[in-house]
Amino acid sequence: MRATVIHGERDIRLEEVPDPVLSTGGDAIVRVVAACVCGSDLWPYRGVVPTHEPHRNGHEFVGNVEEVGPRVEKIRVGDFVIAPFYDCDFTCANCRNGVSTSCLHGGWWASDDEFGAFADGAQGERVRVPHADGSLVATPSMPDASLVPSLLTLADVMGTGHHAAVSAGVTAGSTVVVVGDGAVGLCAVLAARRLGAGRIVAMSRHENRQRLARDFGATDIVAERGDEGVGRIKRMFGDIGADCVLECVGTRESMDQAIRSARPGGMVGYVGVPNGGPELPVRRLLNTNVGVNGGVAPVRNYVEELLPEVLSGAIDPGRVFDLVLPLDAVAEAYAAMDERRAIKVLLQP
Amino acid sequence: MRATVIHGERDIRLEEVPDPVLSTGGDAIVRVVAACVCGSDLWPYRGVVPTHEPHRNGHEFVGNVEEVGPRVEKIRVGDFVIAPFYDCDFTCANCRNGVSTSCLHGGWWASDDEFGAFADGAQGERVRVPHADGSLVATPSMPDASLVPSLLTLADVMGTGHHAAVSAGVTAGSTVVVVGDGAVGLCAVLAARRLGAGRIVAMSRHENRQRLARDFGATDIVAERGDEGVGRIKRMFGDIGADCVLECVGTRESMDQAIRSARPGGMVGYVGVPNGGPELPVRRLLNTNVGVNGGVAPVRNYVEELLPEVLSGAIDPGRVFDLVLPLDAVAEAYAAMDERRAIKVLLQP
Repeated sequence: MRATVIHGERDIRLEEVPDPVLSTGGDAIVRVVAACVCGSDLWPYRGVVPTHEPHRNGHEFVGNVEEVGPRVEKIRVGDFVIAPFYDCDFTCANCRNGVSTSCLHGGWWASDDEFGAFADGAQGERVRVPHADGSLVATPSMPDASLVPSLLTLADVMGTGHHAAVSAGVTAGSTVVVVGDGAVGLCAVLAARRLGAGRIVAMSRHENRQRLARDFGATDIVAERGDEGVGRIKRMFGDIGADCVLECVGTRESMDQAIRSARPGGMVGYVGVPNGGPELPVRRLLNTNVGVNGGVAPVRNYVEELLPEVLSGAIDPGRVFDLVLPLDAVAEAYAAMDERRAIKVLLQP
Repeated sequence: MRATVIHGERDIRLEEVPDPVLSTGGDAIVRVVAACVCGSDLWPYRGVVPTHEPHRNGHEFVGNVEEVGPRVEKIRVGDFVIAPFYDCDFTCANCRNGVSTSCLHGGWWASDDEFGAFADGAQGERVRVPHADGSLVATPSMPDASLVPSLLTLADVMGTGHHAAVSAGVTAGSTVVVVGDGAVGLCAVLAARRLGAGRIVAMSRHENRQRLARDFGATDIVAERGDEGVGRIKRMFGDIGADCVLECVGTRESMDQAIRSARPGGMVGYVGVPNGGPELPVRRLLNTNVGVNGGVAPVRNYVEELLPEVLSGAIDPGRVFDLVLPLDAVAEAYAAMDERRAIKVLLQP
């Protein structure tokens, strides 16, 4: 089959690789219907994270089940399934605690250094899923093709935006600021609206993203950053700041922006994957009683809650995909994301 | 009147100072019945925080109201009152949000550099309270002398231990670890018990503190620290760690201990005042979805909840005072705390 392999900085290739083979009894093989490129894929692409050896890439996909192992009980051949951006058994203590990203037996797609057996990446034609009954959620019936983009967001960005909102404690009437206007930030706006936020500020400098943020439920847009951005947020919220700030970028600047935008006693829900830092300024947090909560989003734990709303059309997070390309054009997909020509690219094998 | 003045490292004196005078209309003058020494008082005492000029000290007191300004409505001359370790109006947005330590018009006792008008320290005979109706809570009647120590803990340590527990989200059945066996840590054990925690581990190496921790509700004691301590905690809780960890020290080591003792998705509630650091390791927090919440405890917001239980004897946090000295012996009180001969010293003017 064909799958994406990263060879180094800005060197993404679609290559012929071995077909996956069932091996553990509890696994399944899924033919990918749609995959995509994640903001975190850009780190090795840009060389920020070095690529020492060529390896597979991609971790978001939906598809059709082609084979299942003899111990698989819930998932069936022919099912249309959503896979979270990691594998998990969904039965261990951490999974039951709502933190399936810390599954005691799970692993990461395309992560051949840590989890050899999990090496398939999602940006390919087929993927072996080690814990089929744990990781995969089947739709009740074959979904209409128009729903595929929104279903794909449940593999990562919509669940991740939701995690930011849940971690920040967004509830009915909350005042919310979303830092970051990438796919996750935009989904975080949508998640905050779902949870009943009273006012939602999207921090964005890009007109097309501002528009989508408004469609998703943002009541206000703030284009300023740094001190100016913090100043505007404070003035909007009684000179103290917002109840909940959703940090969806992961840089030192964005985390600083988030912490300073929260009111005393407020909470920062963060999901931006920081690259090596930043460490959090405990003295400022202590003085203001601003909490910091979140992390690698356990999106598997949210699929059952969000799926019905995607299927009914109540939410349409798939609108974050503003470019669709064939898998053949995966290198162009990375380039479009890197150059911010696209918010998020959907890949069709 | 006489009041405590710190002149420098290990130089604590009781001196004659001017009597406080009502000045703002909303203030009151309280004759101190009991004050005490806080762990944070030891920083200037030990020279960790330099003392550039002699200044008043102490921030925990209960007493009798002697005078009130013309705009004071709730507090009356003759009331027995509890003062939080800071002044607040209890009407501003932050106070209403439950974060009276961030009161927009409040200040700190004995803090002559930042808040000239608030300069009285609690380790003296009388204190002018700028926002009498905001800061002070009067008991329904004159309390029995035996209740004074527990009432005094509502000025700081019991409210602070409670804040650690609330910030960590302790609820019925939670597994809890308390890092720190000072007065705040011990009160945090009591607070966790009140909130219905299922299992409470006190990390302590001192036999007398272990005993009090057990009396306050600790179900387990762990004397080990560092990797060994973390290892024991993990083994006690299914190899993953505890739901809630209450950090009541404020050093890099104690915060590290706390973060590593929490299970994935768990929460660290911290109230230890860190001296210059530590910065929080965001990557570890991100990977494990451990949140960090808390800060300078808004104890004023908790007095109404805790006071009835102190008055009824349902909780007896005053047991953390294991040494009572006259105000004359304030230097000895600091020395006893510094040398860990006492958990907490009560001072009687």
